[in-house]
Amino acid sequence: MLSKNTVKFIKSLQQKKFRRQENAFFVEGAKNVTELLNSDYEITHLLFTETFKSEQWSLIKRCGAEKYEVSPNQLGAIGTFQTNEAAIAVAKIKENAVFRLNPDELALALDDVRDPGNLGTIIRVADWYGIKKLILSEQCADLYNPKVLNSSMGSFTRVALFYTDLGPYLRTVKAPVYGAFLDGDNIYRSQLSKNGIILMGNESKGISRELIPYITHKITIPQIGLAESLNVAIATAVICDNFRRSTWEI
Amino acid sequence: MLSKNTVKFIKSLQQKKFRRQENAFFVEGAKNVTELLNSDYEITHLLFTETFKSEQWSLIKRCGAEKYEVSPNQLGAIGTFQTNEAAIAVAKIKENAVFRLNPDELALALDDVRDPGNLGTIIRVADWYGIKKLILSEQCADLYNPKVLNSSMGSFTRVALFYTDLGPYLRTVKAPVYGAFLDGDNIYRSQLSKNGIILMGNESKGISRELIPYITHKITIPQIGLAESLNVAIATAVICDNFRRSTWEI
Repeated sequence: MLSKNTVKFIKSLQQKKFRRQENAFFVEGAKNVTELLNSDYEITHLLFTETFKSEQWSLIKRCGAEKYEVSPNQLGAIGTFQTNEAAIAVAKIKENAVFRLNPDELALALDDVRDPGNLGTIIRVADWYGIKKLILSEQCADLYNPKVLNSSMGSFTRVALFYTDLGPYLRTVKAPVYGAFLDGDNIYRSQLSKNGIILMGNESKGISRELIPYITHKITIPQIGLAESLNVAIATAVICDNFRRSTWEI
Repeated sequence: MLSKNTVKFIKSLQQKKFRRQENAFFVEGAKNVTELLNSDYEITHLLFTETFKSEQWSLIKRCGAEKYEVSPNQLGAIGTFQTNEAAIAVAKIKENAVFRLNPDELALALDDVRDPGNLGTIIRVADWYGIKKLILSEQCADLYNPKVLNSSMGSFTRVALFYTDLGPYLRTVKAPVYGAFLDGDNIYRSQLSKNGIILMGNESKGISRELIPYITHKITIPQIGLAESLNVAIATAVICDNFRRSTWEI
């Protein structure tokens, strides 16, 4: 039976302080838990409903975590979803490995992207476009924030995130560094390479001034109408699409 | 002085029922209120802080609404923002005009897009790409929901929304109707016309079966990585970008 202490422990992981302390996080809902069960994350607790059990029994069976069959109401009381008919899983946080860009690789860098929904959506976009690494300034939202994980729709299991001080890192990069600005070169007419870094800035302030010297190509999505700007996750998707499209056509 | 009744009236507009009954809605925050003040919406009430007054006095002065100088705390208590240092404005809802697609025009159609944040972001995307009309099924989120307005970042003042039964409308369209699917033709290799309708479907179910006969071109954003799908606002932006890019290059 699920103890009060376990419930309290899982709930505490909604807060970054306790995630750090316990070195653990949780994911919720059918999509995210299924993706987690299929990943190499080490799962310690798995709470699932009868429905989820009937749909994912083979995955549940081979998971080595502490397992509890619970009601949707219990899941709702523990997680952040208003309703959760499926599951919650607790896993161990992965160590922040050292970022290495392969010679042919395209990666994303995020400078001070604070909104958890934006970060989660960017992870999903990266996964769609086959971008496997994100390098983030320390001010970015925390990967293990439930809102980040939820909006990533399971893509957090396939995209590696590296938190670091972006300036010292970008200084060492030999590959092209593309930065998204409102007044850069028209991306439709730019030469976009197969490899390098695409740097996206803060939701309201854009890219920090101290990172500008490391940018080799300033790019812009042409503004055809009158909106002042695009949401950062939207801009990231459009830029990734332009990069992939230009390689596709070669 | 701001009366209790006025406060109650504005707060009630958070709910669709009262927006319909009063034929009114409110917007909040500096960006949205400034855009509203610059639009042709008829504003009935304007609540602003000292800060907003000092920044936008000329706009406030020429606005014919009932005006109240209030504190940020008062704004916070009335609207949906946790903090609002700027303003709240109440305006009259515009009548749902009849949708007409000009011969050279590209418009968006949304089938059952329910999430207010997605709708608001799509309005902002449409405005960025110079798309001036959105046609929506009745099941879509309500334009005047505060979350829709807030995530549109003021673009709702420049994009006209038409709620209608999509099937009967699409049956009459002579221009190309592009529908976004997970298994359509690769958009990178498709001929994209300058005019027509781009139809986007529901967040989880996609485009309704009964609308499929009216689609002349099924299109897809190539999936390069492993994410199962893209968020509908993201997909809309990428598709609009491909359309505008293809015309740009001609």
